[in-house]
Amino acid sequence: MQFEPTDHPHRRFNPLSGQWILVSPHRAKRPWQGQQDEPDRAVKPPHDPECFLCAGNKRVTGDINPDYQGTFVFTNDFAALMTDTPEAPQSQDPLFQLHSARGTSRVICFSPDHSKTLPEMSVPALTAVVDTWCEQTAELGQQYPWIQVFENKGAMMGCSNPHPHGQVWANSFLPNEAAREDETQRAYFAQQGRPLLLDYAQRELADGSRTVVETEFWLAVVPYWAAWPFETLLLPKFAVKRLPDLTEAQRQDLAQALKKLTSRYDNLFQCSFPYSMGWHGAPFNGEENDHWQLHAHFYPPLLRSASVRKFMVGYEMLAESQRDLTAEQAADRLRSVSDVHFREQA
Amino acid sequence: MQFEPTDHPHRRFNPLSGQWILVSPHRAKRPWQGQQDEPDRAVKPPHDPECFLCAGNKRVTGDINPDYQGTFVFTNDFAALMTDTPEAPQSQDPLFQLHSARGTSRVICFSPDHSKTLPEMSVPALTAVVDTWCEQTAELGQQYPWIQVFENKGAMMGCSNPHPHGQVWANSFLPNEAAREDETQRAYFAQQGRPLLLDYAQRELADGSRTVVETEFWLAVVPYWAAWPFETLLLPKFAVKRLPDLTEAQRQDLAQALKKLTSRYDNLFQCSFPYSMGWHGAPFNGEENDHWQLHAHFYPPLLRSASVRKFMVGYEMLAESQRDLTAEQAADRLRSVSDVHFREQA
Ligand SMILES: O=P(O)(O)O[C@H]1O[C@H](CO)[C@@H](O)[C@H](O)[C@H]1O
Ligand SMILES: O=P(O)(O)O[C@H]1O[C@H](CO)[C@@H](O)[C@H](O)[C@H]1O
Repeated sequence: MQFEPTDHPHRRFNPLSGQWILVSPHRAKRPWQGQQDEPDRAVKPPHDPECFLCAGNKRVTGDINPDYQGTFVFTNDFAALMTDTPEAPQSQDPLFQLHSARGTSRVICFSPDHSKTLPEMSVPALTAVVDTWCEQTAELGQQYPWIQVFENKGAMMGCSNPHPHGQVWANSFLPNEAAREDETQRAYFAQQGRPLLLDYAQRELADGSRTVVETEFWLAVVPYWAAWPFETLLLPKFAVKRLPDLTEAQRQDLAQALKKLTSRYDNLFQCSFPYSMGWHGAPFNGEENDHWQLHAHFYPPLLRSASVRKFMVGYEMLAESQRDLTAEQAADRLRSVSDVHFREQA
Repeated sequence: MQFEPTDHPHRRFNPLSGQWILVSPHRAKRPWQGQQDEPDRAVKPPHDPECFLCAGNKRVTGDINPDYQGTFVFTNDFAALMTDTPEAPQSQDPLFQLHSARGTSRVICFSPDHSKTLPEMSVPALTAVVDTWCEQTAELGQQYPWIQVFENKGAMMGCSNPHPHGQVWANSFLPNEAAREDETQRAYFAQQGRPLLLDYAQRELADGSRTVVETEFWLAVVPYWAAWPFETLLLPKFAVKRLPDLTEAQRQDLAQALKKLTSRYDNLFQCSFPYSMGWHGAPFNGEENDHWQLHAHFYPPLLRSASVRKFMVGYEMLAESQRDLTAEQAADRLRSVSDVHFREQA
């Protein structure tokens, strides 16, 4: 019997996180009798008087949102971090280590239009979102080593408000995932003399079997080591360390790539496709950082349909992430739908 | 201003996983407008003719379950692993690493009574579950280095059938979490000359502020580094490497501890408390393994009520696990409810 990646359980290695993923492609056949989530197919009004992110509305704190036209950024009313946390006393005990943490957390409204999500926005409007990500990163990077730009989309991903928005959290420390990617990219660069993700992008461009979207400057693939069913990695085709380093042309082209990628997502199950996404770029730690390459991760939970998700639970939490289809199968499915959003198709 | 762990954001270190956790205790005050899950308060019948785990019923494959009285174990009809996967060709490429994986996956029915969950079972019936975990681990450990015993409880944790059951997956490899705990425990043992988790249990016994349940042989704490709101770590008060090494008295006492812990969970929000739990013990890899200490992790998602959970999403997936109350606050809440299940209270 010969090994077939589409028939036989195997593990793939994520060189960026240093973790393995168990792939069980034969398992997609099992019937599902568990939780069904409500698919998000609602068409929303452009302004919702109850929404605390819509222009002109009142927030929980009593603050009134301005009558904004493009993006709008404000400090989270219930931020997980504070700018002035006092230092904590140092403990010598290896079992009880605690450090004080400082930072801030801001909300980024993508558009005043309550009814739109990223794939439904125009390319100029998306370019404004990219510009805001870049500006926020540049500004907060003057004070903090790690700037985490991200979006939780959909109730399934813990998003408590359907108004199109993301967040940026600034940290006085390198969080786990950042520290891990710093280490793995550094080790690869030391060995190979080139950034890991630049090498990887070139290999994926040459291969094509995991490609989902390609534009002039950008490439989105289901990475070889994807954990979530339709996970993608959005990569620049050129060397770049951080969001603010992008040129105007690269930002406009990124807006195109984002529109295409998220349209394919929505088209897959004809719903507003939930995900958490976010950007990783070189830390602002005063180091050389030539090993770093900017990239975005998209982690969408849906597996079989608009209402049946993958659960990363018992085995996954206690042992290892596990997936039910190969990265190549997932890329194939995403390529087989249009890159024009179903609501924008004539 | 002085640092106060209940007021100020901080990070705590998990010495077992080598990861940090961001604690934002002031954040518990924020209002929640997001997804509400259906609380599980249903009283179920003792036998459900539609359930494919009840005694005498037919499974998807056509197999008929025996008329079992205690626990019942069978090979998962849609196992994520196979016993006979062929070897995969080796790749020299650090970006495209793939290994073939072998193993098996079994379902463990805890009881023929469809209506019961662990806290509602008698101590002798729970002892039979513990015995089954031990036997399965011993048997599969003769063939595989890693035996993952776990339970996904509740629809929220991806459990597709409410019949009381868990699983055991055997692996031809050390999965990520196992490899990580092997490494951290080994390093601690090399430095301190004692198992990490035995030292930790003694410190928690002396302190008491994170203790949830204590019996003759066992201790359940909200670990100092808990990530999930009401996460607990179930620890032996004595040195022991694996489930099958437990004596009869230690197993019976474990049944008591499990009943008390899971009853406190159910009592917290007066519902069937969802969680994923599982056991970690020394791998069956022929090594010395004196650094290993047997333990169980409980990862429950609920945060504020029976219907509002914690979402580990954007920031957590891309940066670091984050929690909204301290471990001590969570332990305090679990201690403030009875260890007798609300359905068994007179
Ligand atoms: O119990 P099942 O149906 O095998 O499946 C459940 O547990 C598995 C192991 O944690 C997960 O991989 C699945 O996503 C989950 O739905
Ligand atoms: O958007 P919110 O309401 O701040 O919160 C959401 O995203 C946060 C960051 O990923 C998570 O910690 C919360 O659990 C989630 O509900």
